[in-house]
Amino acid sequence: MTTPVIRVGVIGAGFVGSALVGLLLDASRRDALEDAATAALEVVAVAVRDVAKSRPGIPPALLTDDAASLAASADIDVLVEVAGGLTLARSYIEAALSRGVSVVTANKALMAERGTALARLGHEHGADLFYEAAVGGAVPILRALRTSLAGERIERVMGIVNGTTNFILSQMTSEGSDYAPALAEAQTRGYAEADPTADVEGYDAAAKVLILASLAFGTELRDEQIARQGISGIRAVDVEFARRAGYVIKLLGVAERVGEHGLSRRVHPAMVPADHPLAAVHGAMNAVFVEGATSGPLMWLGEGAGGAPTATAVLGDVLDAARNRVSGRHDVPFMVDDTLERVPAGDLASVFYISLDVADEPGVLASVASVFGRHRVSIQSMEQFGVGNEARLSFVTHRALTRDVDATIEELATVESVDSIGACIRVIDGGNS
Amino acid sequence: MTTPVIRVGVIGAGFVGSALVGLLLDASRRDALEDAATAALEVVAVAVRDVAKSRPGIPPALLTDDAASLAASADIDVLVEVAGGLTLARSYIEAALSRGVSVVTANKALMAERGTALARLGHEHGADLFYEAAVGGAVPILRALRTSLAGERIERVMGIVNGTTNFILSQMTSEGSDYAPALAEAQTRGYAEADPTADVEGYDAAAKVLILASLAFGTELRDEQIARQGISGIRAVDVEFARRAGYVIKLLGVAERVGEHGLSRRVHPAMVPADHPLAAVHGAMNAVFVEGATSGPLMWLGEGAGGAPTATAVLGDVLDAARNRVSGRHDVPFMVDDTLERVPAGDLASVFYISLDVADEPGVLASVASVFGRHRVSIQSMEQFGVGNEARLSFVTHRALTRDVDATIEELATVESVDSIGACIRVIDGGNS
Repeated sequence: MTTPVIRVGVIGAGFVGSALVGLLLDASRRDALEDAATAALEVVAVAVRDVAKSRPGIPPALLTDDAASLAASADIDVLVEVAGGLTLARSYIEAALSRGVSVVTANKALMAERGTALARLGHEHGADLFYEAAVGGAVPILRALRTSLAGERIERVMGIVNGTTNFILSQMTSEGSDYAPALAEAQTRGYAEADPTADVEGYDAAAKVLILASLAFGTELRDEQIARQGISGIRAVDVEFARRAGYVIKLLGVAERVGEHGLSRRVHPAMVPADHPLAAVHGAMNAVFVEGATSGPLMWLGEGAGGAPTATAVLGDVLDAARNRVSGRHDVPFMVDDTLERVPAGDLASVFYISLDVADEPGVLASVASVFGRHRVSIQSMEQFGVGNEARLSFVTHRALTRDVDATIEELATVESVDSIGACIRVIDGGNS
Repeated sequence: MTTPVIRVGVIGAGFVGSALVGLLLDASRRDALEDAATAALEVVAVAVRDVAKSRPGIPPALLTDDAASLAASADIDVLVEVAGGLTLARSYIEAALSRGVSVVTANKALMAERGTALARLGHEHGADLFYEAAVGGAVPILRALRTSLAGERIERVMGIVNGTTNFILSQMTSEGSDYAPALAEAQTRGYAEADPTADVEGYDAAAKVLILASLAFGTELRDEQIARQGISGIRAVDVEFARRAGYVIKLLGVAERVGEHGLSRRVHPAMVPADHPLAAVHGAMNAVFVEGATSGPLMWLGEGAGGAPTATAVLGDVLDAARNRVSGRHDVPFMVDDTLERVPAGDLASVFYISLDVADEPGVLASVASVFGRHRVSIQSMEQFGVGNEARLSFVTHRALTRDVDATIEELATVESVDSIGACIRVIDGGNS
């Protein structure tokens, strides 16, 4: 029996692309890959912007600067897109899928924006579209949702899906440092960009929540906005308050059922109980926690970024696509469940931690407490820190509606003795968030 | 297009079997299962010992007491074996596979003993053999090793794969209790059997290590013995010593490469650094930690036992088998790598914690230390606890060969001033164990 050959075209030779090509060309892995792919994998071309640039591990003869021709080529069976970007990447992927060429991509932004349409295009032409590396780097959570948990009724997904913010929060927790120096440390180590907005304000995590929700709950991937709160307002005192109360602050991407027909998707910092598995996810690691109706709690953990770890996830997809190609099958796109209604973030109830900088003068607590009361937010506990001009009040509420808490904070900002609003952080407790 | 029908026969209606049949017959899940299976799943029969016994959720008309006929029936496409046992289960599975019927089983003991031969039988007849539920209950680690990590060079697998022992050790850690009361508590809660030997002496974990190693390293499943040390010798003082040193004691099943061509598989308690993800696996939960050459560290966590969680894993396999059946493909059995040599446990080096009960008299330390020295085991630190007749010495060694440590302990047992040998526990530190 002759071994089938699967021809792979790669667009992009950055950290991920280079690592992937290195794995595909590694002679010591060849037999294992052939067994796993049920085919010999042949890299036919690697599209880059500058073919003159030396790229260790990639034979110059493989390089091309014509990504569009590679994507539309009849000489490939699987196209790997690891160049990133939206418009061009989309045109390459559409060109491949519409010819029945399977596509593997790490493009989180594009998948969050147009994933459903692209998957449908692939389905129409008998091609796979896999994107394991788009969420959680090396963590193989998407395939697990597609396969092992395909028959499970998932109740909730909570992910630490942004390594930058987890590194910053871990620094603040372990070093007791404030947000600014922790961010600077993350930038020094290459975990954060010069402009960290996409990470620290939760945009990156939001795209990953959309992708996780699409596989866990059957929502469509079509450029939606979800409620999003970042970590830049969190201070060392909040982290310390959490620690003393038995919690760790994490930026969570959450997708969960609300009642029988509701779905909430959102990104926000949360106080996670110190004995919760997510609390032990340190540094730049990622993790996804899934609660299934019958499986109970499950968690996946691993490196959320980096060339080699991300390339491992891409390679897993390439092997899957190759096997499917050899056996003449393609995996069905995710199923769309249109019955789930989006629940606005304001309608959700949670326990909240709220900290305020106030003038330390008589009557402050009374005026602040009356604001909480007016918005039906009941206070579970209060602590005052500091004396003189720099007093801080930390409140933990009873379970309250997010919209009532938002209104409380809006009014508190107008109270004269309130100097500034510090953090507002949801407290995760058992089954509630 | 008519929807294909996949006929499922189930042998066994204990906790797992009942939960599985409940899921397969659940009308509210029917559409989702049909999408995931690319077929309608029809339960044709459930084989039990006593058909007269009432089984809520299973229509009496489905019950049969003739498991052998069900296994050999031409009317099923997938056989689910969740009855357990060795001889009969094997005959049922062989009957099905040899007719080309795919098999899903939760039978860890049988798979550890004959997995390779059974997988080959299935392969010859175009049938799948899946057994996700055999390791880690709901944790979908086996499919991840077969698919997502099929192209990865795995360096090490470390699993907390026995919930009973993890519950006992967690109790000892959180309550400061000794082994006997923690075991009694586990028995009261139904986590431990009246005869706990299979769990606490590591037999159960050893079978799971064999299965994990077969998928991670290509070893054959053919009734091998591996080095095994249980937890019954661990005392509250050892747990407390570990805590003060920044460690948590866990029973680990380990399979790892040693050098270029060696493989070690073993079960033993270990001191795991408190910030290691495995240290945060509490109670009866299971977790598998995998170190890949390019993926870096990965971890899976979830319920290791229980009817519903285990049934979720079985259901994932049934869906996989159904999809394969519909598309006329079957998944290749695991690849066998005969080049890896088994490294005897004695040849491995580790840091060890060793505790001794000694007579508190002058010269004891000198005589004990000379035994360590004679066997080339160098001492990193020593602490003495207690006074009077009940002194205890706790040693932490430098990295030493296991066989030298074994010889040391053997000789220490003959030293007159040593009343008894307490625990001997490997200390995991960074990349070493």
